[in-house]
Amino acid sequence: MASQSVLTPQGDDFPKWYQDVVAKAEMADNGPVRGTMVIRPYGYSIWERIQAEIDVRIKEAGAQNAYFPLFIPESYLSKEAEHVEGFSPELAVVTHAGGEELAEPVVVRPTSETVIGEFMAKWVQSYRDLPLLLNQWANVVRWELRPRLFLRSSEFLWQEGHTAHASYDDAAAYALKIHTEVYNDFLEKVLAVPTFLGIKPPSERFAGAINTMTCEGMMRDGKALQMATSHELGQNFAKAFEITYQSEAGQAEHCWTTSWGASTRLVGGLIMAHGDDNGLIVPPRLAPTQVVIIAVRDEEVVNLACDTLAASLKAAGVRVTVDRGRGSFGRRLTDWEIKGVPVRLEVGPRDLAEGHVTAVRRDTGEKLTLGVTEAADKIAQVLAGMHDEMFSAAKSFRDANTHDVSSIEEAIEASQGGFARLAWDEIGAEGEKTLKGEAITVRCLQRADGSIPVTETEEGLTAIVAKSY
Amino acid sequence: MASQSVLTPQGDDFPKWYQDVVAKAEMADNGPVRGTMVIRPYGYSIWERIQAEIDVRIKEAGAQNAYFPLFIPESYLSKEAEHVEGFSPELAVVTHAGGEELAEPVVVRPTSETVIGEFMAKWVQSYRDLPLLLNQWANVVRWELRPRLFLRSSEFLWQEGHTAHASYDDAAAYALKIHTEVYNDFLEKVLAVPTFLGIKPPSERFAGAINTMTCEGMMRDGKALQMATSHELGQNFAKAFEITYQSEAGQAEHCWTTSWGASTRLVGGLIMAHGDDNGLIVPPRLAPTQVVIIAVRDEEVVNLACDTLAASLKAAGVRVTVDRGRGSFGRRLTDWEIKGVPVRLEVGPRDLAEGHVTAVRRDTGEKLTLGVTEAADKIAQVLAGMHDEMFSAAKSFRDANTHDVSSIEEAIEASQGGFARLAWDEIGAEGEKTLKGEAITVRCLQRADGSIPVTETEEGLTAIVAKSY
Repeated sequence: MASQSVLTPQGDDFPKWYQDVVAKAEMADNGPVRGTMVIRPYGYSIWERIQAEIDVRIKEAGAQNAYFPLFIPESYLSKEAEHVEGFSPELAVVTHAGGEELAEPVVVRPTSETVIGEFMAKWVQSYRDLPLLLNQWANVVRWELRPRLFLRSSEFLWQEGHTAHASYDDAAAYALKIHTEVYNDFLEKVLAVPTFLGIKPPSERFAGAINTMTCEGMMRDGKALQMATSHELGQNFAKAFEITYQSEAGQAEHCWTTSWGASTRLVGGLIMAHGDDNGLIVPPRLAPTQVVIIAVRDEEVVNLACDTLAASLKAAGVRVTVDRGRGSFGRRLTDWEIKGVPVRLEVGPRDLAEGHVTAVRRDTGEKLTLGVTEAADKIAQVLAGMHDEMFSAAKSFRDANTHDVSSIEEAIEASQGGFARLAWDEIGAEGEKTLKGEAITVRCLQRADGSIPVTETEEGLTAIVAKSY
Repeated sequence: MASQSVLTPQGDDFPKWYQDVVAKAEMADNGPVRGTMVIRPYGYSIWERIQAEIDVRIKEAGAQNAYFPLFIPESYLSKEAEHVEGFSPELAVVTHAGGEELAEPVVVRPTSETVIGEFMAKWVQSYRDLPLLLNQWANVVRWELRPRLFLRSSEFLWQEGHTAHASYDDAAAYALKIHTEVYNDFLEKVLAVPTFLGIKPPSERFAGAINTMTCEGMMRDGKALQMATSHELGQNFAKAFEITYQSEAGQAEHCWTTSWGASTRLVGGLIMAHGDDNGLIVPPRLAPTQVVIIAVRDEEVVNLACDTLAASLKAAGVRVTVDRGRGSFGRRLTDWEIKGVPVRLEVGPRDLAEGHVTAVRRDTGEKLTLGVTEAADKIAQVLAGMHDEMFSAAKSFRDANTHDVSSIEEAIEASQGGFARLAWDEIGAEGEKTLKGEAITVRCLQRADGSIPVTETEEGLTAIVAKSY
């Protein structure tokens, strides 16, 4: 199958390759209004899998889903000055509704933070109401002048968690739990993306946060993508929204709050972390279709074999799609390759006559000739091992492209096609400025053992430095 | 447990009872912008169950989920004149974004119909691309001056299906499949709501449709609620959006399209179809919590018994919540009753000492004294039978309040606290007008055997007539 690729090779033009994959894998299209996107069925089926895997972890962590309104009174956004400064040019504003001009314009939520703050203040009375652990799956709007499908769009889908706690310790522990047991667990165990976990330097922190944790993944061009963030908001947010509770001692106290989010950006991360010149490669635990059974020709004996194999695989808990043999075989092969289905099973009349079928792994390209009767079992085995292999491959790639350096100059050089790792002490405000001039940022700060520090003032921290999306 | 109800009785003031239940069961609150709603965790957990049950049926029917943008260019809405007339005063319009006035205002989708039409036209080329079966779960906005939580809100959540077919027959068959195998199956088998299935008379048809099918449920005040609708759009919509395909014969043809939707209104329907003076009653297949285990007191022996019972019930596939014994027992009992959890299991130290616990059915109020070791099995049995009993009870109520009449005058009388059934021939344009003067409409037309007619011109149709939400 050494067919000519229909995609721009990654090495020629990575952004063009990305666009090609999004279009040819039928992931998404540009919407009619600038910066909006149409998520096509295949792209959406991947998002649904991401949602399901993150949602089950969020619920496991004790948070409950709720839904807050799309429209927010403009006045709400002035309650937290720092917040508004972050968003104001990105807001979409509704001035007319119900056939007339509104007395007060309403803003389309750029996040639901402010309205959730209002309701938290209403719902929290006593220490018995804490912690209050809320999450929302919704669309949000932040006007984008340079949109890129999944990575930056004027409207995107995400989940935003907002929690209120009785103490700093409880809030910090919960933000860390979400960061590691929800986000990083999903990234490593489902998306097969190794991350650098750490905290943002003050310059990159979320407006209003006292600490921002991040999961940074490496894309195939060596740039970083922030896959998810978790913020400790201290009492700042609770003070702005008057979220108070009566303590056991009967005192009125401000809550300690957190917020955390992950979005359809993760679909972009999936594409760029695993894709190759032939298209997407979807890790098996995430894949909406884990095995595609491709009939070489639309013949009764072939169709029957396809259905039997599909039934055996389904019985083994595998997500299967059958592609009946209509239209060019080569074209269909290429299409499934671009879509990145983990294993394809080719079923042709000649092979069948000899009692076998051919399985091809999307990640390694390895071909396996399998007896018809053993095929389902063998493929289930391949799928079971494939996740760890994809994760290892991504980790090797990342580690090979992460360089320990000892100066800003070396960091700039290393960031041309990968990450640089250097002592946080070496950087300073001046260093961050120099890096920024080269479109490079400090992605996160870690302890020497790779664990997440509590604050950037800890001794001996390491900075991960890179260009990013 | 003859505690004073905290709700306005249904018989005193049904709308007030509804408001009380929504508030006291912590289902939803009014949002800060007029007509918007905050769906609280308990209300949202019910919506998530509704979504999951409908979604699995939609996928079973072969449709795929996708996502289309929130914002629609204003010009799109003029493509289908009839459509705009239906929506224009309800639109919310964004005039400013990105810090400046937009060259063309954009509308917040009242439905995604127009943008989906645009993309269908792009995606459908040949008969091989048909049928194209799309569905979307999303928020939509239709400005409401007289909002009511779940029933009428300026923003609501829904699914909208849009499909394109190569022939009238295929489109009609698919709309019917969705109506019966998705909507009515869900309503009867999960929501335990019996419906009158039929077609709308021309006066009540969706703008642009050649046929609209509906599922009409009876609420506890005898009014009708339209639970879901499915529309055959003929070639009207395809002509407006130029959705054409090349037939096998090589001819360019317009598609035949359908659309169909169900929304967060269903939560309102759940409340009003099953609720009583003590609150909500959630049918067991829908209930996010099927059994609440209530510890009478927060004591070790009680907590241990609660955990053991919870584990046994979970092992039997039951969705369980444990309410530890903190705060007043009576108050907690009332709260769970208002929330309508199908079975509550009261675990107290005295009962435990005698080796038993008390189960109470929410629907009938029946109390069962159960041995601790047999409790889980017995409760699983109760739950298994409860759905059918709730459905039967709702059907008996509906049938007892549906009267066969033979004149408009009798129909008006019967519609004061129930449905009237009379010959469609008896009504006519004049009759519909008279009924409308009394806030009564023809909810649907059926054949004599209760089946769904193809057109309102069939002989011998029966009209179901009622006041409605």
